[in-house]
Amino acid sequence: MRTDYCGNISKDHVGQEVTLCGWVNRRRDLGGLIFIDLRDREGMVQVVYDPDLPDVLEIANTLRAEFCVQVTGKVNARPESQINADMKTGEIEILGTDLKILSKAAPLPLDSNQENSEEQRLKYRYIDLRRPVMSERLQFRAKVTSAVRRYLDDNGFLDIETPILTKATPEGARDYLVPSRTHKGEFFALPQSPQLFKQLLMMSGLDRYYQITKCFRDEDLRADRQPEFTQIDLETSFLDADGVMAITEDMIRTVFKSLLNVELGDFPRMSYAEAMQRYGSDKPDLRNPLELVDVADILKDVDFKVFAGPANDPKGRIAAIRVPGGASLSRKQIDEYTKFVGIYGAKGLAWVKVNDKAAGLDGLQSPILKFLPEAEVNGLLDRTGAETGDILLFGADNYTVVTEAMGALRLKLGEDLELLEGDWKPLWVVDFPMFEEIDGQLHALHHPFTAARDITAEQLEADPLNALSNAYDMVLNGCELGGGSVRIHEPEMQSAVFRILGISDEEARVKFGFLLDALKYGPPPHAGLAFGLDRMVMLMTGADSIRDVMAFPKTTTAACPLTDAPGEANPEQLKELAIEIIKKANDA
Amino acid sequence: MRTDYCGNISKDHVGQEVTLCGWVNRRRDLGGLIFIDLRDREGMVQVVYDPDLPDVLEIANTLRAEFCVQVTGKVNARPESQINADMKTGEIEILGTDLKILSKAAPLPLDSNQENSEEQRLKYRYIDLRRPVMSERLQFRAKVTSAVRRYLDDNGFLDIETPILTKATPEGARDYLVPSRTHKGEFFALPQSPQLFKQLLMMSGLDRYYQITKCFRDEDLRADRQPEFTQIDLETSFLDADGVMAITEDMIRTVFKSLLNVELGDFPRMSYAEAMQRYGSDKPDLRNPLELVDVADILKDVDFKVFAGPANDPKGRIAAIRVPGGASLSRKQIDEYTKFVGIYGAKGLAWVKVNDKAAGLDGLQSPILKFLPEAEVNGLLDRTGAETGDILLFGADNYTVVTEAMGALRLKLGEDLELLEGDWKPLWVVDFPMFEEIDGQLHALHHPFTAARDITAEQLEADPLNALSNAYDMVLNGCELGGGSVRIHEPEMQSAVFRILGISDEEARVKFGFLLDALKYGPPPHAGLAFGLDRMVMLMTGADSIRDVMAFPKTTTAACPLTDAPGEANPEQLKELAIEIIKKANDA
Repeated sequence: MRTDYCGNISKDHVGQEVTLCGWVNRRRDLGGLIFIDLRDREGMVQVVYDPDLPDVLEIANTLRAEFCVQVTGKVNARPESQINADMKTGEIEILGTDLKILSKAAPLPLDSNQENSEEQRLKYRYIDLRRPVMSERLQFRAKVTSAVRRYLDDNGFLDIETPILTKATPEGARDYLVPSRTHKGEFFALPQSPQLFKQLLMMSGLDRYYQITKCFRDEDLRADRQPEFTQIDLETSFLDADGVMAITEDMIRTVFKSLLNVELGDFPRMSYAEAMQRYGSDKPDLRNPLELVDVADILKDVDFKVFAGPANDPKGRIAAIRVPGGASLSRKQIDEYTKFVGIYGAKGLAWVKVNDKAAGLDGLQSPILKFLPEAEVNGLLDRTGAETGDILLFGADNYTVVTEAMGALRLKLGEDLELLEGDWKPLWVVDFPMFEEIDGQLHALHHPFTAARDITAEQLEADPLNALSNAYDMVLNGCELGGGSVRIHEPEMQSAVFRILGISDEEARVKFGFLLDALKYGPPPHAGLAFGLDRMVMLMTGADSIRDVMAFPKTTTAACPLTDAPGEANPEQLKELAIEIIKKANDA
Repeated sequence: MRTDYCGNISKDHVGQEVTLCGWVNRRRDLGGLIFIDLRDREGMVQVVYDPDLPDVLEIANTLRAEFCVQVTGKVNARPESQINADMKTGEIEILGTDLKILSKAAPLPLDSNQENSEEQRLKYRYIDLRRPVMSERLQFRAKVTSAVRRYLDDNGFLDIETPILTKATPEGARDYLVPSRTHKGEFFALPQSPQLFKQLLMMSGLDRYYQITKCFRDEDLRADRQPEFTQIDLETSFLDADGVMAITEDMIRTVFKSLLNVELGDFPRMSYAEAMQRYGSDKPDLRNPLELVDVADILKDVDFKVFAGPANDPKGRIAAIRVPGGASLSRKQIDEYTKFVGIYGAKGLAWVKVNDKAAGLDGLQSPILKFLPEAEVNGLLDRTGAETGDILLFGADNYTVVTEAMGALRLKLGEDLELLEGDWKPLWVVDFPMFEEIDGQLHALHHPFTAARDITAEQLEADPLNALSNAYDMVLNGCELGGGSVRIHEPEMQSAVFRILGISDEEARVKFGFLLDALKYGPPPHAGLAFGLDRMVMLMTGADSIRDVMAFPKTTTAACPLTDAPGEANPEQLKELAIEIIKKANDA
């Protein structure tokens, strides 16, 4: 039905007859001529109808926005004066010789000249996706998956599908449940990730696995959350952490180079401890030059209680952020930042402005200056490297509050004051603790199948809180792009981790017996990683919302057919299901 | 941890030191030497340990089957006499210089020397998948998806994900339902296919879509059915049926050429009517040379009621199959075939053996000969082309029974008598009827979004049963590999089809209002197709069961952890769900 895409017509076609199909983006009538901007997936081209062909002109005269048409015509070079440099096809236009209306369009329910509500956009998703910016994002997403697949295919990874309908287990509190009709009263669960399946594939000797697959979490909808999301999931045998990091780093480098022409270079590595210390985050945005500087040791002997308390508390922390040029911040701005850190539990935000460093104490301005001896003040200036024009901001509290509050403040300052440097700053964060303690209970920082670093099962059980895991997160511009780990492949170590997590040997057998069994039959050392595809595409396209990089996202409104949240079920099936569930609930 | 895969070591490596990781497939002790067959995904290689390195020999001495090990050694050419031509690596062996046990294996629960029950195989899937035949099938499947994706990527198709959690609609009787926690009492449904989503993507102007995606059907488990199965799904705008057939035929040809080195050539086309007439099937296996030959016109005037009835009934049919060499069939065999056609409702199976054609009637043998005049008998011999040594088998009943019974008999004879010719016989079946009548109600032969051929909505409503659809099925060796159609893109035509199917305009608005709306805003002409990936891989690998081409199939037994049918749900969630469903059921 066509010879080419609209967006691909160029000076090379001048003199040729082409046939194009697409949508009327705009029609203008000028001096007896009719100009049509014809749009398809690849772009836009201008078609002109003139009175020499009155029959065709008459059809052109009936065209309205979004009519779907087939156009035949001759490609002409535009005169120099009419070249449109903003348009890919701006050097040519098509003199229309034929025109067929393939389908008409009623006036659109979305207004192309103004912002439409997201509800309207989702209700008429098929129209919203015609906007070039939306179409381009979906096209870009397809290019990302294609590039990722080619890389992995070429590096010995096998695309292997794992089930969507998996076995429901009683602990799966956030799983979606799917009632089975064949096994009445029983349920499938939708997977939160294919983690255990891919580990089993390694035990099957399949060596290198990948899958771009949907994962599910029965959570509330938020701007950046969808109940189904897509993961680039991979697993390898006989590779250690360095090996997995090397190959996945190269994959991301290759994708960025081929799709954005960006050279990411080698990714630096940073320990979790250093990331928390210097950036107050386990996914630091390295484009932001601000850092948290620890100063508690300088302030141990001051009388000022706000500092003296945390400085002498082993669980306390005092961190300063030096903001270059920040001396110009107004009192009102400082008050707002004080309110901001309050969200994270900080009781205040001490500050010192360096108006004139050469003037010594007289050149400083601060409500807390009167509480601090000169030596300590000089110590702070030295440690932070403060210069004339800077401000120092201080957090003093327990470790968690200071780290979180000052980490968040660092990000906010970086954005507000436009301090970000460079476009893309990737890094690896490594050396995570195996466990964290929440309300006296130990939790796995990654997941319970993560291997510990250089330690026996006995040593791990003796001192779990000081053990480091063999996990690694790939972080880009403050976002966790992917995360993974070396997995446990010794049954003793796996049992030890379960016990540390408060899962008894008996409980572990019930819940994870198949895994403990599998580890008895010659499991290979294995390691892997999972990337969030939606987030990767958001980052690479600059989209603001995860919904803008998905064709049919879920919404919280019930108004949007198909593209939308759940609906009414078949009443008969519902009744049958209710009966089965009541039976089951009575049994339980 | 390794320098290469076991299966890739060849004469090119002779003299080199290699390090390999894999599983002990077999250990043999011979004259003080220990021989290990070391296996990984790519194949097997022989490693020899000798007494020159007693420490290493001692470790080798502890190896048992399925230990996972790391081996270092020197690649040696085998002496001429020891070359194993059956083994890819049979020209070399590795003289082991180092050996590390990565993990031990308890005696395996699956016996490698005998057939294991499928239940055992699924329970210990991670061990069953180590068998080269299973591993190779999964590797082949990954190659198929990779080849398909490359073809489609290179031909302008965009890989676009559609939702797994879709809107439940009351008519979705065979859908899996997923209770939503956020929208209490409401349900998602798992898609039986992304049909409507992909049509919406065409209306979005995305032009060419594909996806390799899971589809779901809440049905009983059978040998060739899984509740989740994988579809290669594609849709195009501005291509007609010929265009879609051309590009998908080329895709399949490319895949067969690159993976099996098979040239499929151009696919012939056959109308549905011809396929039913000549083969009694809408997916004829063209490797089978037998055909159904209509002979009712010859038998209109005979007295024999078995023939005279159907011959004079406009809804009757009499079809003969000539089986070359079939005169040697025993009475017992014929009785069995008579029983076989009984499954399809045939009340008998008339037959005529041609023992000696030159001898005229005397050379024939048949219980029905006495009822038939000589002219009619000669007519049958002429029409069927029967020769000495052949048998003619007759079905005479109503059209449906004869077509189904003789179609099935044709397949059975082809298999039993090993008549199949050639390895791969693809074709397109086209010109399907739009509707079929079942119990006085019209049903869509494909689906209600399929366009009719060369007909207006008015004409279609006037005579729906004689309308042909613009649908096409790709058939290979008697299997439907894929099916598709041009879709309706006019709202009037879509409404007409709904009415013909007994869906009132009001009901259509409730159920398909979003589609009828979408068709108002300049929908492009569009067409598509879907392939069953599982079946394609089964065909190409020669696997007998769909379960043998999936990593983790479902089973009907409850014994197999993870790989298996549903399990117990979280009791608390269950309780909550029950309450919501009861509420909802009460409301309904």
